[in-house]
Amino acid sequence: MQYAPSNGLPRLRAQIAALMSADGTPCGAEDVLILQGSQQGLDFAARMLIDPGDVVVTEDPTFLGALIAFAPSQPRYATVPVDQDGLQTDVLAKLLRDTPRARMIYTVPDFQNPTGVTLSLSRRHALMDLANRHDLIVLEDTPYRHIRFAGDPLPTLKSLDTEGRVIHLGSFSKVLVPALRLGWAVAAPDLLARMGLLKVAADTQTSTLNMAAASLFLDRYDLAAHIATLRAAYRRKKEVMLDAIRQHFPQEVTVTDPEGGLFTWATFPDGFDATAFMRDVALPLARVAYVPGETFFPLTPRPNHARINFSAPSEADIRKGIAALGAALKTHARI
Amino acid sequence: MQYAPSNGLPRLRAQIAALMSADGTPCGAEDVLILQGSQQGLDFAARMLIDPGDVVVTEDPTFLGALIAFAPSQPRYATVPVDQDGLQTDVLAKLLRDTPRARMIYTVPDFQNPTGVTLSLSRRHALMDLANRHDLIVLEDTPYRHIRFAGDPLPTLKSLDTEGRVIHLGSFSKVLVPALRLGWAVAAPDLLARMGLLKVAADTQTSTLNMAAASLFLDRYDLAAHIATLRAAYRRKKEVMLDAIRQHFPQEVTVTDPEGGLFTWATFPDGFDATAFMRDVALPLARVAYVPGETFFPLTPRPNHARINFSAPSEADIRKGIAALGAALKTHARI
Repeated sequence: MQYAPSNGLPRLRAQIAALMSADGTPCGAEDVLILQGSQQGLDFAARMLIDPGDVVVTEDPTFLGALIAFAPSQPRYATVPVDQDGLQTDVLAKLLRDTPRARMIYTVPDFQNPTGVTLSLSRRHALMDLANRHDLIVLEDTPYRHIRFAGDPLPTLKSLDTEGRVIHLGSFSKVLVPALRLGWAVAAPDLLARMGLLKVAADTQTSTLNMAAASLFLDRYDLAAHIATLRAAYRRKKEVMLDAIRQHFPQEVTVTDPEGGLFTWATFPDGFDATAFMRDVALPLARVAYVPGETFFPLTPRPNHARINFSAPSEADIRKGIAALGAALKTHARI
Repeated sequence: MQYAPSNGLPRLRAQIAALMSADGTPCGAEDVLILQGSQQGLDFAARMLIDPGDVVVTEDPTFLGALIAFAPSQPRYATVPVDQDGLQTDVLAKLLRDTPRARMIYTVPDFQNPTGVTLSLSRRHALMDLANRHDLIVLEDTPYRHIRFAGDPLPTLKSLDTEGRVIHLGSFSKVLVPALRLGWAVAAPDLLARMGLLKVAADTQTSTLNMAAASLFLDRYDLAAHIATLRAAYRRKKEVMLDAIRQHFPQEVTVTDPEGGLFTWATFPDGFDATAFMRDVALPLARVAYVPGETFFPLTPRPNHARINFSAPSEADIRKGIAALGAALKTHARI
């Protein structure tokens, strides 16, 4: 019930280091900083590294919460489109040649938010080569990494980092309990020390109680078995959702088929406004909610996208919701 | 176990507003922002209000954690000495005339950290008059406020605030559980909205679990009765400590006699180095720890002070520790 070290309970730091090491990213307890969710790592990275006008490179689209975390540091953005193999590193290479103030690449390499796509192995190597060549920090955000239900795990960017330039962020929110607000950073000693100073300044420490609860869970229960349960459930739900989409959606709507994570990314025909359609039709008539896509674009919002979640609703609700949404698209959007 | 609103669980915000109102600071749930400890409020205030080179006015000495929270915003400091009635507002008045870039006054008005002294009623009015005249934000930090064991409560600065310029910070750390990391801010709508945006950016939200635990405690148990127990215990311990100090310390050492809080502030003769004495004598020989005073001074560290805590040790340990420290002072420091 008392105060604890600012960088986290030693036992939990060691447990996280063991999890990371087992996942192919060797590290020790001393390389781990416990955070108030990985969101706090986004905030700290921006505060450490970004002066107003510096450029943050992101996937296009990217995680809205990261844009919110970076905003107080007043960055400019440069964006790189994604395809089924993730961030397009050939586009990144060209972009970096013309972007002298680029300081940091922010990426969600596994089951990206919002698109669900995963960065391929060759592009992981290409991205690290570019970061080394242009002296950039890579902020690797991996909340969905362990929820993989197809294919083989790919190495983290941190495990490919030979120059101490990757700040790896992990989280218990998607594999254990969101309400605990527990995440962590793994980074080179100099970067981790600077983040540790910000931790003292920002909130002294993460809750002792929550750190102890997570640590006890890891000691007494089998996290891998728990994640296997999640994986099986989410795989099944993803399949149910994609089957229903194939059956009910107009053929002009395409969706990604993610190998993990919590959502698929829908692309509607040009001219479709997913924000207006949710407000006017999907919510009131079909009684279905999705996340309209436009807020995920740092520079040029594109209104014809939506992020659709399959992890929370039941299989029955997925079938019912997708059928209702499909009917509404055909009737009211005339797609 | 799920995510919650960024500004906090509505029920807990209402409960805190009721506590504040009962304490003479009327407010509603909408005026309360839940924080990751009041430390997070110190960080947010600096990030919102302080540009590099702006001046923060503090008591001299002041809370080290606040200096750590302000540091990333690169303020300059102007300091005001305290006496038994707290921050000397006549000195503050003169100082503000010569400090055009003063933006904020940081104060712990009740049982100040580290001195334990309390700002008198007339000085509370004087401080607010000066803040109004010089257009300053007052950051009122009140972690010890409810641990009063002598005298009558004085109005919060927030309750004397007619112009929406006080950011009041409260905390459950000292009256409930430090490990929960639960604090809050009460401020005018414009300031609270800006802090709310920083909360989303910084860590999305405080732990749902911890907010729910505090809320349930407030519903099911009697916080006032719990605080009354703390007050009685700490009053007794304070008396035991001050009695022991009178009996065992050299007469040249003076200590404050706080009406509340967790510690007393010792002043040793000029030339005494409390940091060196703890390292070389108090810890290894007397086996007593205190907090050396020099880190509490923003501008000019004075080495002849120590903050001595009476809330944590047992009465027997207080008697034993103070006797050992007194003997060591007489033998090894030749005071």
